[in-house]
Amino acid sequence: MPTATFLPGYRKAVVPSGTTILDAARAAGLPMNVVCGGQGKCGKCLVFIKDGTVSFDTEDCRRFFSNNEIASGACLACRATIVGDVRVEVPAESLIQEQKILVEIPGMKEVPLKPAVWKYEVHLTPPSLDDTTPDLARLLEGIEGQEGPPPNRIYAPLEVLRYLPQVLRRSGWHVTGTVALVPGGYRLLNVDEGDTTGRLYGAAVDLGTTTVVAYIRSLTDGRVLATASNYNRQISCGEDILSRVNFARKSGLSRLQQLAAESINESLKSASDAGGIDLEEIFEVVIAGNTVMTHLLLGIDPSYMIAEPYIPVVRRMLSTAAGRIGIAAHRNAGVYTFPAVSNFIGGDIIADILASGMADRDEVSLMVDIGTNFEAVLGNRDWMLSCAGAAGPALEGGEVLFGMRANPGAIERVRVDAGTLTPSYSTINGIRPRGICGSGLIDLIAELIRACVIDRTGQINLEIDNPRIRRGPYHPEFVVAWKKETSIGKDIVITENDIRNLIMSKAAIHGACMTLLDAAGLTPRDIGRIYFSGAFGNYLNKENAITIGLIPEVPLERVENIGNGAIAGANIALVNRERRKALDGIALRITYIELNTEPSFMDRYTSSCFLPHTDLALFPHVQQMLEACRARQG
Amino acid sequence: MPTATFLPGYRKAVVPSGTTILDAARAAGLPMNVVCGGQGKCGKCLVFIKDGTVSFDTEDCRRFFSNNEIASGACLACRATIVGDVRVEVPAESLIQEQKILVEIPGMKEVPLKPAVWKYEVHLTPPSLDDTTPDLARLLEGIEGQEGPPPNRIYAPLEVLRYLPQVLRRSGWHVTGTVALVPGGYRLLNVDEGDTTGRLYGAAVDLGTTTVVAYIRSLTDGRVLATASNYNRQISCGEDILSRVNFARKSGLSRLQQLAAESINESLKSASDAGGIDLEEIFEVVIAGNTVMTHLLLGIDPSYMIAEPYIPVVRRMLSTAAGRIGIAAHRNAGVYTFPAVSNFIGGDIIADILASGMADRDEVSLMVDIGTNFEAVLGNRDWMLSCAGAAGPALEGGEVLFGMRANPGAIERVRVDAGTLTPSYSTINGIRPRGICGSGLIDLIAELIRACVIDRTGQINLEIDNPRIRRGPYHPEFVVAWKKETSIGKDIVITENDIRNLIMSKAAIHGACMTLLDAAGLTPRDIGRIYFSGAFGNYLNKENAITIGLIPEVPLERVENIGNGAIAGANIALVNRERRKALDGIALRITYIELNTEPSFMDRYTSSCFLPHTDLALFPHVQQMLEACRARQG
Repeated sequence: MPTATFLPGYRKAVVPSGTTILDAARAAGLPMNVVCGGQGKCGKCLVFIKDGTVSFDTEDCRRFFSNNEIASGACLACRATIVGDVRVEVPAESLIQEQKILVEIPGMKEVPLKPAVWKYEVHLTPPSLDDTTPDLARLLEGIEGQEGPPPNRIYAPLEVLRYLPQVLRRSGWHVTGTVALVPGGYRLLNVDEGDTTGRLYGAAVDLGTTTVVAYIRSLTDGRVLATASNYNRQISCGEDILSRVNFARKSGLSRLQQLAAESINESLKSASDAGGIDLEEIFEVVIAGNTVMTHLLLGIDPSYMIAEPYIPVVRRMLSTAAGRIGIAAHRNAGVYTFPAVSNFIGGDIIADILASGMADRDEVSLMVDIGTNFEAVLGNRDWMLSCAGAAGPALEGGEVLFGMRANPGAIERVRVDAGTLTPSYSTINGIRPRGICGSGLIDLIAELIRACVIDRTGQINLEIDNPRIRRGPYHPEFVVAWKKETSIGKDIVITENDIRNLIMSKAAIHGACMTLLDAAGLTPRDIGRIYFSGAFGNYLNKENAITIGLIPEVPLERVENIGNGAIAGANIALVNRERRKALDGIALRITYIELNTEPSFMDRYTSSCFLPHTDLALFPHVQQMLEACRARQG
Repeated sequence: MPTATFLPGYRKAVVPSGTTILDAARAAGLPMNVVCGGQGKCGKCLVFIKDGTVSFDTEDCRRFFSNNEIASGACLACRATIVGDVRVEVPAESLIQEQKILVEIPGMKEVPLKPAVWKYEVHLTPPSLDDTTPDLARLLEGIEGQEGPPPNRIYAPLEVLRYLPQVLRRSGWHVTGTVALVPGGYRLLNVDEGDTTGRLYGAAVDLGTTTVVAYIRSLTDGRVLATASNYNRQISCGEDILSRVNFARKSGLSRLQQLAAESINESLKSASDAGGIDLEEIFEVVIAGNTVMTHLLLGIDPSYMIAEPYIPVVRRMLSTAAGRIGIAAHRNAGVYTFPAVSNFIGGDIIADILASGMADRDEVSLMVDIGTNFEAVLGNRDWMLSCAGAAGPALEGGEVLFGMRANPGAIERVRVDAGTLTPSYSTINGIRPRGICGSGLIDLIAELIRACVIDRTGQINLEIDNPRIRRGPYHPEFVVAWKKETSIGKDIVITENDIRNLIMSKAAIHGACMTLLDAAGLTPRDIGRIYFSGAFGNYLNKENAITIGLIPEVPLERVENIGNGAIAGANIALVNRERRKALDGIALRITYIELNTEPSFMDRYTSSCFLPHTDLALFPHVQQMLEACRARQG
């Protein structure tokens, strides 16, 4: 049976002779635009036969297509049938666009599409003895007058000049030039034969220590075409940042550089396969990562960041060509890495800030990004303070007996009946529970407070007569799920020791927030908005986070989850060159407060080692709730 | 005997044990600065012992040098004696500078030194917990306030960021940064340990079809440190431009690119050896070449220039990094190629214009560059017209029976006694004549006119009774040197046919000049200055050039030889960034007139096929001279 190969994505389908190209495209997973239902009436299913044998009525074509298009192999996919192996180019406009939209970043609709890369289709007058303008000047004159960069500021790199004369002549002087804004001007990235203006893509990447996430967008209309994620392959050289830096110090820098690029490429490749996109047509890549990840990706030594006095090599936004660091996009595509404030406040946090919009407003916002470490930023358009610290592993499920990451089977939400103390819970993917993840742990502690099972120090009241409250092998514990409900053949419990570890984690975060507020001379009442970022923040119950004192108490409607702020910020910087340009300014505006050398932090931490806090006046609504609970219990 | 190696130039001398470093340096050809005559009293002959064994009194050193210098191996060259093999670094300031000055370009003194590259020595405060500024920002803050580029516009390429942290720490935070003006901003090219501000070099290159010439200059004071020249190695792929382009078309482009770079490198290497300069410390290379040479050097296809409609790929000034095209300088050094007007008016002619200064004046100038081809430019600061054509080989000694290039043994100047018709001549290198080169041929024809041996059509008057005038095997001829005077065992003659060929060559040039004047609505009287460029122009007798009608007649004092204008222009663009910046504007201001399609040119050419011209009114002084001669002869 013949094989139909669809360009530019190289999707294939093996179909019987006589199949229409439309059906073959469907079989290859390419949903085509057939307004008339495939009756040859609308002319929307234009494809170009690049080579191979097909059968079709040329009359059909003449009704819809120009002579030039017909000369390029244009035909109607619904009317042409496949005779032998065939290669078919499917223009973007012939595909159903809606079906390609994937997960959109919240708030992206409000970001105007102003990319830093442009495509220009030009039909040039061929040179003659009366018009001997050189090839490059002729191309730039063709661009003149079109929207975008002024042609006299467009710089053409040698590499493009080396193939330009051939492309111009082979195409019959009909080409598409790709031009990007670069520091100090504009660069001619590429010149294609014919009209490729419909295919101008960009990628936004979150380069996390553990996970890489990539979005591919059309930069002509801003739509998300595909997303993908995978593990950071550097994990093979060390799980955490510190071990990676140590690996880099032992001559492993170039290996880590390569692995960072490969990790990003893995995401870009899956996304481009899913979206039917040629990686060569990605002309911009915007990458948000923490300071060490950014150094490693660029092959810059991060060694001096892990020992006193903890100095990064560079914090400003950097740009380089994809080909120079091995990123799988057009080799001249600009790769932009987010700027950083310090070792600890990296490009991922600047991306959070961009995603939240807090740097554009007068209102004071507090941003908290929680992972193994936490980062907090307080401020507004005029000033920003930041700090960072180790949250401890408890909130990610570490140092908790039945703690686990947010994987299938993790209890992610819990309610506890105040009378019977019976928990009701939901698990990730809805399967039998295997453990409890961060959001579940926060819910659980908040609910146990409300039910008066634990006191403000986190101690379990063993005097309550309920089978779920018992003395465990080492510590008092509360049974969340009985053995028979679980998939692990054991009771899932939370122990007093688990609760103590969780209190220390949340106290570090709350203490940091209070330190920032103090430094700014503000109180929680002055906070207009609190943002949670990080995968963890996505599933967090805001009320419970306040109940346990993870963050300062503010009215609930002021708390917002922005999810993965790093990928959101990268997307914004990809589609809007003005927001991208503002990033260095944002980074420079942020003052970093080192908690280890800030004497007041330890006091604030200690004061926060209660549920919700030593000073209940800081948590007036939680105080009311606690009083109500106590009253109910008598 | 021990060997003393002197850095940075790697000059060596093998000397007996006990020789002072001063004497060893003299033996190695390095003239050192010894104000006190080598008595250890002035401290000017500072050198650093890098390794090896020398004997010296540390007391001497302490009198003149800092502890840091002593720690780096400082000693007085006049007091330290060599014990075994030794490597000695000689700071530039310890050398006698005057003796390094080589051939200077005329007029360079009036060009202000404003290079496009700067070195900054900075002593940085090491980072601390209280000052965690990143490495790059710390370096740029150190530059802040020094003369030159604003630090916030300095872009640091990845490559420098990759070694920056090590250099900063190894040097104890005392480094020298090299920054260059690049399109759209500034680039941090390099960071060295310690103070290297004394060693900032640039190269100016004339990339000719036949010959490459290179000058190396200090960009701190503008002095010429060395010059060198050699053949263009592309000659192995074809002698003339056309055969090179044809070689490029047959997959030979990358070979020609490589040969162009190697040819330049050969010159740079000889010059750097002669000047004791490390090629790695050349941070800018400015190259003037014709349009095809420039395309080939950059690896850009010149094919479309040699067939109708004769289109170059690019005419603007291009810049790239030395490492990218294989030029032997610092790999990040900017390589700048002169812009062109067209295929025929290339960067070499723009360099001529720069060297002449004609584009800066109100006065109208005419520039004529003569080689196998000729180029002519007429104009001033407001407008310029140009044209080009084949001069024919006669002026280079081709198609002339005893013609030769300006090599040793060529008759380069001739006078002919009007009475006896005995020529007196001088030859290149003063050896017995082997033939006649271009300047000699022009002298000879002018003298034969004055002596009434030839008439205005170039016909030899056989009626004159003189043994030097005779009927040769094919044509009438005049004997310039008898067999016994020559080194070739033959009479050296000039034939009527030779003279005809020379008249056709000169007529093409004069006709072109007249075409430009006509196009501008001017006459020879409007020409304020005529410049001759090209190696040929250097030896030309101006009066004789006018006598034969090679150029329009103007008062003699208005004619100037600028010699190799290409290398002169390249030198100017190297030392003065403002003049370099003006080049694209000059090139764009020049209108190119295609002589082949200009109907009036053939008429002007035909009218010029006389000595000096059909219309003697155009040559009033020559007319007077002819009348005087005729009167004298009766």
